[in-house]
Amino acid sequence: MAKTPAKVAVVLSGCGVFDGSEIHESVSVLIHLSRLGASVRCFAPDKEQPNAINHFSGEVEPRRQRNMLQEAARIARGGPTGDPGSQPLSQLDPAEFDAVIFPGGYGAAKNLCTFAVDGPACEVEDDVARVVRTFHAAGKPIGMCCIAPVIAARVLGTANGGPGCTITLGEEGDAPAAARKMGAQHKACRAVEACIDRENHLVSTPAYMLDAPLHEIHAGIGRMVEDVLSLVGAPQATASPR
Amino acid sequence: MAKTPAKVAVVLSGCGVFDGSEIHESVSVLIHLSRLGASVRCFAPDKEQPNAINHFSGEVEPRRQRNMLQEAARIARGGPTGDPGSQPLSQLDPAEFDAVIFPGGYGAAKNLCTFAVDGPACEVEDDVARVVRTFHAAGKPIGMCCIAPVIAARVLGTANGGPGCTITLGEEGDAPAAARKMGAQHKACRAVEACIDRENHLVSTPAYMLDAPLHEIHAGIGRMVEDVLSLVGAPQATASPR
Repeated sequence: MAKTPAKVAVVLSGCGVFDGSEIHESVSVLIHLSRLGASVRCFAPDKEQPNAINHFSGEVEPRRQRNMLQEAARIARGGPTGDPGSQPLSQLDPAEFDAVIFPGGYGAAKNLCTFAVDGPACEVEDDVARVVRTFHAAGKPIGMCCIAPVIAARVLGTANGGPGCTITLGEEGDAPAAARKMGAQHKACRAVEACIDRENHLVSTPAYMLDAPLHEIHAGIGRMVEDVLSLVGAPQATASPR
Repeated sequence: MAKTPAKVAVVLSGCGVFDGSEIHESVSVLIHLSRLGASVRCFAPDKEQPNAINHFSGEVEPRRQRNMLQEAARIARGGPTGDPGSQPLSQLDPAEFDAVIFPGGYGAAKNLCTFAVDGPACEVEDDVARVVRTFHAAGKPIGMCCIAPVIAARVLGTANGGPGCTITLGEEGDAPAAARKMGAQHKACRAVEACIDRENHLVSTPAYMLDAPLHEIHAGIGRMVEDVLSLVGAPQATASPR
């Protein structure tokens, strides 16, 4: 970890597991970043969510619109003046940050990209793709939870002309198979573990991809956050065995 | 802590610091309950919030209604079949639980009682008052974060014919003064501390009543949750010095 506080951007997609950022994962990221002394700002697209889900009934709310940024501000405790506060993702300048972290939740697969609908042929939201590409190109670490690593698989995978990358989505299954189609490698991990791709400065943890108790998910996210901060300023490996 | 997992009810008031349950506090409660092996179920009133706040701008959304239970289900990851899941507060039977915990947020002072508007003369929502009275009468511990202890002050305070109780709301100031008017005693605490009232099996921690970093708030909530679970099955003190 850098001696000056690391500056970390956290990219959210709403507020709630079924139509936005998974709340437990997002808060775990913020708790561990606080514990490790990082300076944090949250970001989300200033766009309507594709849908809003009544989290009690599980049903789509047909006449309800929710804005990702306004909902994410609930997790971020406010807008630009909040602590950690939130800003539109279009304003995220990678030059101002040392690392970026994407919590999971269906919002990562529905709002930040179209993986939930389109699978391996998914499109990634423009600012999300820009952020992943720019941090990656600068050798700045990227952390991801739960289903969010499919975004890295799509942006950095060989199917899209990228270098390829290694991620975890928990156990083997449909999502890892789709990640392989996008030209990423998959490593199975337990909830308390993180997968480090040292060539790409990419760290992922299964979180709620697994049916694990919350404190184990919290521990795995802690491991991911520690690994992300340990990579700030580190040289990228070029030919290390994975 | 009991050898069989303690059963703990968590009472939420929505999802977001400005119009519901403070999300960081609620998730911290759930993380520590998971760590300590408790069995958890969330509850919230199945009622409309008095208002909904755009958390990015801080403004009231005049045409937006949000239901406390539906919003709380975002923190609880679903309704009755979720994990931990949520149910209407009217269904909370204290006989089925060993302890109850109230996270903070403006929802605790606007939705669960009218303290934010009426101060020491506030009214407490019927099911909230029933739950506090019933757990208290049974000697089952009650944990509270942030501003939520004003509910205990109102229900158990001498001004309302109760026995009185001791709570923390962080530093001295307007809220502690109001708590004293309701017939409660106030003990100043730091963010990492919890205030234990052994006569009433009531544990409180300042959380976001103080301007403290999130990991300290998380630690204070951990202390509160540990103290709550330590009181499960313990005899109530009757004349111990506080």
